[in-house]
Amino acid sequence: MIKAIVLLSGGMDSLLTAAIAAKECDELLFLHFAYGQRTQDKEQDCFRAIAAHYQAKEASIVDYRWLADIGGSALTDSKIEIDQHPDGIPNTYVPFRNASMLSAAVAWAEVKTATRIYIGAVEEDSSGYPDCRQSFFEAMQSVIRLGTKAANIRIHTPVLHMSKKDIVLKGMELNVPFELSWSCYKDSDAACGVCPSCVLRLKAFAQAGLRDPIPYREQS
Amino acid sequence: MIKAIVLLSGGMDSLLTAAIAAKECDELLFLHFAYGQRTQDKEQDCFRAIAAHYQAKEASIVDYRWLADIGGSALTDSKIEIDQHPDGIPNTYVPFRNASMLSAAVAWAEVKTATRIYIGAVEEDSSGYPDCRQSFFEAMQSVIRLGTKAANIRIHTPVLHMSKKDIVLKGMELNVPFELSWSCYKDSDAACGVCPSCVLRLKAFAQAGLRDPIPYREQS
Repeated sequence: MIKAIVLLSGGMDSLLTAAIAAKECDELLFLHFAYGQRTQDKEQDCFRAIAAHYQAKEASIVDYRWLADIGGSALTDSKIEIDQHPDGIPNTYVPFRNASMLSAAVAWAEVKTATRIYIGAVEEDSSGYPDCRQSFFEAMQSVIRLGTKAANIRIHTPVLHMSKKDIVLKGMELNVPFELSWSCYKDSDAACGVCPSCVLRLKAFAQAGLRDPIPYREQS
Repeated sequence: MIKAIVLLSGGMDSLLTAAIAAKECDELLFLHFAYGQRTQDKEQDCFRAIAAHYQAKEASIVDYRWLADIGGSALTDSKIEIDQHPDGIPNTYVPFRNASMLSAAVAWAEVKTATRIYIGAVEEDSSGYPDCRQSFFEAMQSVIRLGTKAANIRIHTPVLHMSKKDIVLKGMELNVPFELSWSCYKDSDAACGVCPSCVLRLKAFAQAGLRDPIPYREQS
């Protein structure tokens, strides 16, 4: 009986990760973080819909508003304008976010005796965040081995080395409900189509030769 | 100008750690966590008093109640009785607590451009928690190096290899205000004197040949 925690933002990378976890595991516990991100409400709707789709045994939302309170990121502070063409690490970088989220996931895994944690980080075809690199996850794995009572919890990053195009193609193969996901930095009924996150997503669907099922405002 | 985050629980280990940080650094930012621990209110009083004593530039309390919500620890769940004579890791172990706290401290350090994080973990003369070992902190240091934008933040554990007796003696040498600290697992005006944490503390003062300045209920 393989029991897994799945970190799910509501975006398409973590959605595909959830689909892979559903194939590989017997019981899924979904985890989401409310950290004052711009699209917090929208993401929670996606999270609940996706957790229901994959018949998660539990779906828990962690109150992480401290991440917004400390500031320093355009993703959690609407006074900081999102850099459209970043040079280096984008200002949507949220300080040490993946380590903070993984820490809570590990704590929950210990209590629930889950042995796997799935996270949908993407290294290559992504934003250049330092906490999306393979080396970061390997180091985090050492911390888990040394710092827990259970010591048998493994991080799984099945989409880490996939291109965005491959994520779309693999998602189609696994019948993932892309219509339930959200990538846009704006919280509205239709995605803006122009923010860096929409641009990445639309490019991925275009390269895959497929049409993104979610509604867009600024394109046909 | 050395700027440091100091994790402060309100116990005597983190109190001495704060005193050492005050000697070594120019600016201190104190950080405390409210995670539903049994003595949460008492600890916050101690935290504020100690932060004022050391003239912290900021003193921030992070809402970490998710740690209590997930359960699994006698420290955060009053329905679980604290094991007085634990065999192995005590049931006061809070899953992955130090990693979770350090993650938030690192995030805050990035925003504040602090380059040091002080934490008062004790390895040898302590409770056997896996996340109080040198190897754990070394692994966490790798995670910080790889997973942050700043990449220049160092964990400092000045009391890690000190005995509890040495912590008392060093504290006296540095004139730390032990009367502002709290170690007891009970939230009351006087410490109980009999819980595992009081026993460790009283033994330390006895070995140092000194009298603990806080009031005790069940001893003279």
